[in-house]
Amino acid sequence: MNWNYMQPVTIRFGNGRIKGLAEEVKALGGNRGILITSPSFVKRGLAAKVQKESEGLICVIYGGVSPNPDIKECEACISMINDHECDFVVALGGGSVLDCAKAAAVMCQEERPVKAYMEDASLLPDTSLPLIAVPTTAGTGSEITCVSVLSDHEAGVKKPLSCDAFYPTLAIVDPELTYSVPPHTTACTGMDVLCHALEAYWSKHHFPIGDALAVHALKLVFDYLQLACEQPEHALAREKMAEASVIAGLAFTIPKTTSAHACSYPLTNLLGIAHGEACGLTIDHFLRINGAEDDGRLLELAKMLGFKDVEAFADGIDSLKRTIGVRTDLKDLQLDKEQKEALVQGSKHPNLLNNPVEITETMLRDLYRKLW
Amino acid sequence: MNWNYMQPVTIRFGNGRIKGLAEEVKALGGNRGILITSPSFVKRGLAAKVQKESEGLICVIYGGVSPNPDIKECEACISMINDHECDFVVALGGGSVLDCAKAAAVMCQEERPVKAYMEDASLLPDTSLPLIAVPTTAGTGSEITCVSVLSDHEAGVKKPLSCDAFYPTLAIVDPELTYSVPPHTTACTGMDVLCHALEAYWSKHHFPIGDALAVHALKLVFDYLQLACEQPEHALAREKMAEASVIAGLAFTIPKTTSAHACSYPLTNLLGIAHGEACGLTIDHFLRINGAEDDGRLLELAKMLGFKDVEAFADGIDSLKRTIGVRTDLKDLQLDKEQKEALVQGSKHPNLLNNPVEITETMLRDLYRKLW
Ligand SMILES: NC(=O)c1ccc[n+]([C@@H]2O[C@H](COP(=O)([O-])OP(=O)(O)OC[C@H]3O[C@@H](n4cnc5c(N)ncnc54)[C@H](O)[C@@H]3O)[C@@H](O)[C@H]2O)c1
Ligand SMILES: NC(=O)c1ccc[n+]([C@@H]2O[C@H](COP(=O)([O-])OP(=O)(O)OC[C@H]3O[C@@H](n4cnc5c(N)ncnc54)[C@H](O)[C@@H]3O)[C@@H](O)[C@H]2O)c1
Ligand SMILES: [Zn+2]
Ligand SMILES: [Zn+2]
Repeated sequence: MNWNYMQPVTIRFGNGRIKGLAEEVKALGGNRGILITSPSFVKRGLAAKVQKESEGLICVIYGGVSPNPDIKECEACISMINDHECDFVVALGGGSVLDCAKAAAVMCQEERPVKAYMEDASLLPDTSLPLIAVPTTAGTGSEITCVSVLSDHEAGVKKPLSCDAFYPTLAIVDPELTYSVPPHTTACTGMDVLCHALEAYWSKHHFPIGDALAVHALKLVFDYLQLACEQPEHALAREKMAEASVIAGLAFTIPKTTSAHACSYPLTNLLGIAHGEACGLTIDHFLRINGAEDDGRLLELAKMLGFKDVEAFADGIDSLKRTIGVRTDLKDLQLDKEQKEALVQGSKHPNLLNNPVEITETMLRDLYRKLW
Repeated sequence: MNWNYMQPVTIRFGNGRIKGLAEEVKALGGNRGILITSPSFVKRGLAAKVQKESEGLICVIYGGVSPNPDIKECEACISMINDHECDFVVALGGGSVLDCAKAAAVMCQEERPVKAYMEDASLLPDTSLPLIAVPTTAGTGSEITCVSVLSDHEAGVKKPLSCDAFYPTLAIVDPELTYSVPPHTTACTGMDVLCHALEAYWSKHHFPIGDALAVHALKLVFDYLQLACEQPEHALAREKMAEASVIAGLAFTIPKTTSAHACSYPLTNLLGIAHGEACGLTIDHFLRINGAEDDGRLLELAKMLGFKDVEAFADGIDSLKRTIGVRTDLKDLQLDKEQKEALVQGSKHPNLLNNPVEITETMLRDLYRKLW
C-alpha cells in the first residue's frame, strides 16, 4: 500500500493558548493583520479582545462571516486585505469563518473573482498569506485541513475546495473558546467530528496515520460529546471534544470525506440543515451499507470502540444522535416530490466516490426513503 | 493539558517509492547532491543504483558511516559537502546513516567542529540543506524525527542532539529496502520501534497525537515483528514493520524517549550492544515499574493491545524478546564491579527524567542486579 503524508500546520493546543497570539504573529513576521470573524464575536466583544491580544498587530476587523459562507463574504475579506495591505490573517470562529479566511488569504494574491476558483480549483495560487486559525467550535478541524467549503447561494452551490495552500500556518486550539457554543450547535459540530473520523477511516484513500488518529477521535466522541452538550462549561468534556476535532481533522484531510459528507451538501443547501447535523443524518446508514461489504476493518474498528459488531456500532451512533437531539429523519419537513428528487441528485457529489462501497442512485433513494 | 505539534516532514511510503527520487530532488530544486551511506550499501551496489535513480543529480558518495556514527564520520561528510558545493543530501541506510547525514546537513553551514555541538546543542544553526532520508531498517524513525544521535568514541560519549533543523525535508520509506536486513538486526531494530512507541506513550511529555500513533505502532510490532524476523522477504510483515517504525517515530519525536533509551546509551557505549537490543533489554522492567504507579493509562493501553493487565503486557514483551532472540539479561558478559558501576552511572541520562516514575540510583541498581 502506497501513501503520502504532509501536515505543515503547527498546532498550539490548550486552555488560554489564545494569549500567546502576539508572540506567534511576531514569529511569523506579521505587521499589519486582519481579523476575520462573525457578527456574534464582534457583538460579544471577543473580536476586540483578540485584537487586544495582538498588541496592535491586527489593524482591521472583518466581522461579517455567516454560516456556510458565501463567496460574496470572501470577496469582501479580499478587498479589505488588499485595501489595508495586510500581511497576515487571523481567523476566529467556527468552520465557516475559518473556511472564508483560508480562501481569502490565498485568493487575495491574484485578481480573479472567487467564482472562478469555484468553477476551477486548479487556478488556485500555491501560496497563502500567513494565516493563524483559531476555531471556536469543536467540529470542522478546518484549522488544520487543506479544505475550504464555500457557497454560492445565488447559484445554489456549496462546494469543498482543496489545495495545499489552504493549510493554515498555525492553529491555536483553545478549548475555552468553545464554552459558549449552545448545546444544539455542540451536538451538530460533534457529529461532524464523528463523521470526519469515521469517513477518514473507511475512505478508499484511507492511510495508516489517518486510521490511528480516527480511532482516537471516535473514542473521544463516544466518551465526551453527550457531556459537552449537557454541561457546556465542563472543562474536560470541552477539552476532549476540541482534541477530537483537531485530531479528526488530521485524520481526514488527506483521505477526504465520503458519502455522509456528499449527502450533507444538498441537505444544507436545499433544506438549511446545519453541516454537522446534515452529515450525521446519514452516517449510521452508510455504516450499515459499508459494514455489509466489510473486509474486516470496520469490525475491527467497532471492537476497538467497544461494540460487538458493526451493527451495534451503527446502533450506538443512532442512540447518541437521539440522546444529543440531532435529526434522525426528515419527516417533519414534509418534502415534496421535487425536493426529494433534488436531494437525491444533489447527493451525487464527487466525495461519494471515496466511499468504499459504490453508492448507486437506487441506494441513495432507498436510504432517503427511510428518512423522509 | 497543553501541547504543541509540528511535523514538517513529507512522507512517501510504499514499495518501490525510491524510484521517484529524481523527481523529488527536482521539486526541491537540488542540483548537486551527496549520497551518504554505509560501506555495505556501496559494496552491494545499492548506492550506485540510488545514484542512478537520481539521474545524475547526486554527484558524490560518502560511504563510510558505521553503526553508532562517530563525529569523525560526520566531519568527513561535512568536508565532502563543502568541497563539492553540494546543495542537497540523500541519506540511505539505517538510523546510523540517517543521523550522521542529518547532522552533516545542518552543521556544514558553519565553521564549528562537530564536537562543539556535542557540548552545546544550542549552537546548532536553525536551517539545513534539503535532506531526503531513506531508511533501510525498520527501527529508529530517524527519517522523520528532529533527533540525531552521535558518538564521540574517543571521549566515550553517545548523545542524542535535538533541534528543529534536524527534521529531514522528505522521507522516502520503501519497505523493500529492508528485505536484506538479517534476522537479528530485524529483531533489534524492531525492539527499538516498540520502545519508541511505548516510551512516547508513557513519557511525562506525552500528548494525544503521539498516544494515538503509539497504540497503532505497538499493535503492529506484536502482530508482525516475529514474522519479519522469521521470513525476511515476507512483504506484508516488512511493510507493516516499516509502517510501525515511521509511525512510532512520529509518536516519540515530540515527547522524547525515557528510561529504556537512557539505559541504552551506556549499554551500547560500554558493552557494544546494538541500540534496539539495548533499549529492549530494560523496557519490560520499566513497564513493571511504571505499571506499579499507573493512573490507569497503562492499563488502558495494555487492554487495547489485548493483554489483561500491565503485568501481562510486560510478560508479552519478555516473551516476544525470547522468541525473536534478543537479550533478556547480561549474564554471559560476566561484568566486573567497575563495569557495573559505569553502567549504573551512565544510565543517569537526561532522558531518564522523562520517565513518569522517578528512577533513583537504587532502582537502577536493583534493575541491573536482575540482569547481570
Ligand atoms: N474546511 C474543512 O475542512 C471543513 C470541514 C467540515 C466542515 N466545513 C464547513 O464548516 C462550516 C461549518 O462550521 P461549524 O460547524 O464550525 O459551524 P459555523 O462556523 O457555521 O458556526 C455555527 C454557528 O455557531 C456560532 N458559533 C461558533 N462558535 C461559537 C462560540 N464559541 N460560541 C457561540 N456561538 C458560536 C456561529 O456564529 C454560527 O452561528 C460549514 O460550511 C462546513 O461545510 C469545513
Ligand atoms: N534519530 C533518531 O531519532 C534515532 C532514534 C533511535 C535510534 N537512533 C540511533 O540510530 C542508530 C541505530 O540505527 P539502526 O538501528 O537503524 O541500525 P544501524 O543504522 O546502526 O544499522 C545496523 C546494521 O545494519 C546494517 N543495515 C542497515 N540496513 C540494512 C539493510 N537494508 N540490509 C542489510 N544490512 C543493513 C548496517 O549497515 C549496520 O551494520 C543508533 O546510533 C541509535 O542511537 C536514532
Ligand atoms: Zn464536515
Ligand atoms: Zn531508539
